[in-house]
Order: sequence, then C-alpha cells, then structure tokens
Amino acid sequence: MHLDLTADAVTLTQQLVDIESVSRDEQAIADAVEAALTPLEHLTVIRRGNTVVARTELGHAERVVIAGHLDTVPLNDNLPSRLDEATGLLHGLGTCDMKGGDAVILRLAQTITRPDRDLTFILYEGEEIDTEFNGLHHLSQSDPELMTADFAILMEPSNGVVEAGCQGTLRVDVRTTGERAHSARSWKGVNAIHKAAEILARLNTYEARRPVIDGLEYHEGLNAVFVRGGVAGNVLPDECVVEVNFRFAPDRSEEEAEAFVRDFFDGFEVTLTDMAPGALPGLDRPAAKAFIDAVGGEVNPKFGWTDVARFTALGVPAVNFGPGDPMLAHKQEEHVPVDQIRSCERALTQWLGGAS
Amino acid sequence: MHLDLTADAVTLTQQLVDIESVSRDEQAIADAVEAALTPLEHLTVIRRGNTVVARTELGHAERVVIAGHLDTVPLNDNLPSRLDEATGLLHGLGTCDMKGGDAVILRLAQTITRPDRDLTFILYEGEEIDTEFNGLHHLSQSDPELMTADFAILMEPSNGVVEAGCQGTLRVDVRTTGERAHSARSWKGVNAIHKAAEILARLNTYEARRPVIDGLEYHEGLNAVFVRGGVAGNVLPDECVVEVNFRFAPDRSEEEAEAFVRDFFDGFEVTLTDMAPGALPGLDRPAAKAFIDAVGGEVNPKFGWTDVARFTALGVPAVNFGPGDPMLAHKQEEHVPVDQIRSCERALTQWLGGAS
Repeated sequence: MHLDLTADAVTLTQQLVDIESVSRDEQAIADAVEAALTPLEHLTVIRRGNTVVARTELGHAERVVIAGHLDTVPLNDNLPSRLDEATGLLHGLGTCDMKGGDAVILRLAQTITRPDRDLTFILYEGEEIDTEFNGLHHLSQSDPELMTADFAILMEPSNGVVEAGCQGTLRVDVRTTGERAHSARSWKGVNAIHKAAEILARLNTYEARRPVIDGLEYHEGLNAVFVRGGVAGNVLPDECVVEVNFRFAPDRSEEEAEAFVRDFFDGFEVTLTDMAPGALPGLDRPAAKAFIDAVGGEVNPKFGWTDVARFTALGVPAVNFGPGDPMLAHKQEEHVPVDQIRSCERALTQWLGGAS
Repeated sequence: MHLDLTADAVTLTQQLVDIESVSRDEQAIADAVEAALTPLEHLTVIRRGNTVVARTELGHAERVVIAGHLDTVPLNDNLPSRLDEATGLLHGLGTCDMKGGDAVILRLAQTITRPDRDLTFILYEGEEIDTEFNGLHHLSQSDPELMTADFAILMEPSNGVVEAGCQGTLRVDVRTTGERAHSARSWKGVNAIHKAAEILARLNTYEARRPVIDGLEYHEGLNAVFVRGGVAGNVLPDECVVEVNFRFAPDRSEEEAEAFVRDFFDGFEVTLTDMAPGALPGLDRPAAKAFIDAVGGEVNPKFGWTDVARFTALGVPAVNFGPGDPMLAHKQEEHVPVDQIRSCERALTQWLGGAS
C-alpha cells in the first residue's frame, strides 16, 4: 500500500484510514509510513518494531517532537473511509483517533524541509492497548534520546485546540469479606455484599478537588467502575469487590494520590491494581509558551490520561493538539471535520516557519 | 444392576449409591427400582418417566406417602461408596442426599406387607435441578391423585429428626440506572453503582421476623446474593443490579412476601425473578400428630425450601424425616452414619405396624 505525501492532508488521511491497523496488526501501515518517509533527504528514518521515527539533524539549539499513534481500536463495521462532501466530514475507523493527526505529521515531514528548529516525527504502534505494547513506552526505554526535545506535540484529537497536561489515574480494589452460609439460614454467615454499603456510602460523600495549575482548572474524580460479589443464588457471599478509579490532578504525585485513596477507604482492604502519573501542563516553559502564542486560541486542561505523560516523565513539556472531537474516539460513528485537519496543518506549518 | 430388597438397609444404600444417577441420567436406577418392586404382590407399580410409584390398595381410610428422589448432584470423585466400619460412616455421592432414605423406603416396601393404613412409595427423578425436570412436580401435574394422602414423609436428610414445614423463597433484581461517561470526566455522567449504596444500606437495617407457627420458630432472611455493575475500567457505569433472596416464613403467602420486598425497596426498580411458596408445618393435623407421637423426639422447623411444599400445595401435610446431616448434602465428603439409616427404618416400621 502506497502513501502519497504530496497529496493534500485529507486525501492522505483517507489513505491512512484505508490501511487497517488495529493494535498488534500495524506492520502494513508502519511499512507504508517508512517507505514514504525514507526518500526524504532532509530526514533520518529509524524503525523500531512498528514504530517509525524521522528526524532532522540540522544542529539547531531547539528540537520539537511531533507524534501520533498508528493503531486503532477494533473494527466495528466502519471501514473503508467515506468522505461526505456535503457536511465536510470524513467517516471511518481511525479518522478521528488519530489518522487525521498522522496525516498532518506526514505532510509536515514532506513540506518543512528547512525548519528553523530541529524536528522529530514519531509514528508509533500499540497506543490503544496495554502499556507493554505501546511503541512510545518502548522507545522511552530503548532509545529515550529519540524522544528528547524542548517541547512535544501529541496530535491526539483535541478539536484543534491546545490541551495541556493530563490527569493521573489509578485503580484500586476495595474488598470486604464475610462468611458463606446457606441463604435459608443466613444468620449463620456474614454477608460481604452488605458490608460494601459503607464503601459506596463514602463514595457518595466524595467532593471533587478542582485545582488551578498554570491557569488551567483540573477536575478530579473518584468513582466505582465495577462491583462484583456473589457465589450462588442461595448462598451468602463471602467476598465483595468494588473497583474504584481515581483521576487526579497533575499537582499530586502517584504516591500522594495512592495515599489519598487509602486514607479515604480507611478500614477496608485496598489493593492498588493500576497507576499512571499525571503530567503538569508545563505552560511556563519557553518552548510551550512560544507554541501557544503561535497557534493562538484558548488552552484547555486535559482530563483524560494520554501519552503526553510519557514525555513529561522524560522532562519534556508536551501538549495535545490535533483534529477531531475526542468524544468520538472509539465510537462506531467516528469521524473528523476535514477543515480541522487543514487548520491544524496550517497552524503547525506557520509555527515551524514553512509556507502557509 | 440388581437391588436386593432382602438385604439390610445399609447394604441396600450401598447398592443404590453404586448406581450412578446424576440428574437427567436416572434411567438405570429407576429401572433397577422398578424391577425390584414389581415382584412384590402387595404393591401396584406405576412408572412415569424415571419416577416409580408403588402403592398398596387395601381400602384403608387413611393413606400415607413416603417419598425420596433418586438423582444426585454431579460426581466429584466420590464414587463408589466406601463403608468405614470403624466410624460407622458410609461415604460417597448420594449416601446422605438421599439414597440412605431411598433404601429405607425400599425396605419398608419389602417388609410392610400388611400395613394398617394404605401406603404410597414414590421414588422420583430430577430433584437437584430446575423444577421443569422434577419428577414430583410432573406427577403433581399429570397424576395428582397418586400424591394424594392424609400425610406425607419426604425422606430428605434431617439427622433422623422430624423437620416440619418449610420457608418460602423469592429472588428479585433491584436495579439502579445512571448515565455513562468517561471516568476522566465523571461529572458528565451519573454513577449507577454509587446509587446502589442506598440498597445495601437498607439491607443493613433489615431485622428478621421470627414467627412461631405450630410451636416452631421460623427465621426469615433478606440477603443480597449477587451484585454486579460496571462497563470498563474507565467508564462510569450506567447500571447496577443487586440480586436479593428473601426467605420467608410459611405464614406469609407468595403475594405477601413479594409485597414486603417491593415495599422494602420502595423507590427502586424491583423485578421478581424466582419464587416458591413456603409450607405450613401442619402439625395440627391428626395424621401428622400421630406420626410425631410415634417416632418421638423433637420437631424442628425447616428453614430451607424442599419438596414438602409440593405436597402442602395439594393439601397434604408433609414433613422431612431421613438419615444424614443436611449440611453435608452436595459436598464432596458427603456421608451418612449407618446407625441413622437403621434408626429411621426402625421408627417407620414401628409406626406402620410392622415388626421392629
């Protein structure tokens, strides 16, 4: 499959969408991306698994990373792509999350041949599934110098508005135990589900913290996402587990977030099952400031966790900025307004000193 | 496979246990029972599916039913039977639930040739699974006159003590609904699991009713037996279901029991999923009184639901009375004290006017 980097960004988005690339099946799209980038003489292309890195090495004092993932969630009867000229919407799996952004990256790689700062483009695999498959995570372990920069832009869908930082997330199992008994003689046992009443009651008393960081208002959340308990229809259950997800603002460390949750559920057995740190917006850094001044418009806090946190962990301030509505990601009816693809391309081209 | 009705009840129990008869696979044991009963000239034998009925037709004013199921729960590496002479325990699947009782029934059929009241012996299929497979249920529909009597004894394990009546049981799903949202933006949704706090809180306030009926103290119970809710680890759940089991004393009708539960969970969506009525002990009936006077000893209320309720529904007072500890039923280590088999046989033989 061939990608034509001289085509416009919308056509290029369609070409990318029409190469199926569900997570763990990214070889075809990575091959196509590598084949399209390799002929460009101003770029050095490096391949790691199904992750492709292309960089200028002009010796500028400043370097910027622009990154996007190549994989999608599973097919849901939503391929091939379909362009609706009347509404200006491009429909199909990956149009929004995030091949519109990938197309902009490839266009920049093609057109910005003499940037006024060094550029690193990263198109990576495995973002939609567990961290162990994430190409950016692999790169941060194997070749962190390829991610090093003064500033990073992740072209995840953000409606073409800059979203800075991201909230952290952790999950705990909060568990009660009891004693089984036949439900016909229930006074001989202890019902673990009944004991979970207090866990849910505490969740109902939770009041969300909304700290303002670098001028952005974050919004925490503490929620049961699963509850399970029960042995049989005639047995008193001896275990109940409430799985709780805590989304925390980036002014808390992972340790502080975990301590908060353990304290909140004091008296219950709490097991940490999953955790990822937040990322401070970093809007006080000169490179970030310059970008925001250049692309203009409002800046929003990012509530969900994204791979920007992987850059922040390496000391690189990072933002989300890409075409598409994040609320449409992972939905069957996923689509992207083609105008947003074009305006994102225009804004980045101008910022990088290319022709607009 | 041959059953020797002239052997003692313990040997006969072993013979019955060693014929595998997991529910829906009762043909071999029903054939053996039918073949053993048919030669007995004082009995008329009727076969319905894998249920065998044998009755005297002496024209007595009074008739007694003595019944037991032939099926067992699934094998659990606990066959063939094993008699431990040192402890006097017979081990193996079905020893307790309830082939010890079945052996007593077959012995009575063999030995009580001139009873002073008419007798109906029923050995039936499909008790351990859904009602649709229950031989006694089928008989109550197809040939209710074969179950008609002044009194019925179900030889379910009761430690050789009379257990009278049984509590009713019903199950409801109590449901909350909410609105899904990404857990990173939880204020955009409504968490259905959090709303279930009130359901569990009410269960914790429940106080069990303990009515005394015919001198027996029953004990009701209202318990969550399952709780489930959750969509994904990062999604606010839009549904939570608490499955509640109400065990109610036999002085409440099914309608009254359902009304109680609906009132208890007032304000929530309540769906009835399962219901079986209780059975009044009926110890005020002359036939029941006479039986208890004859076998002596204490009488206990039956908390669990049993097939005695099927007789009660036909207007026949019924009790449980059989060898074995009901707490061992359905356990791998199921066993029966051989002395209990013998004492049950002795008590019933004396009551029916046979040699002791």
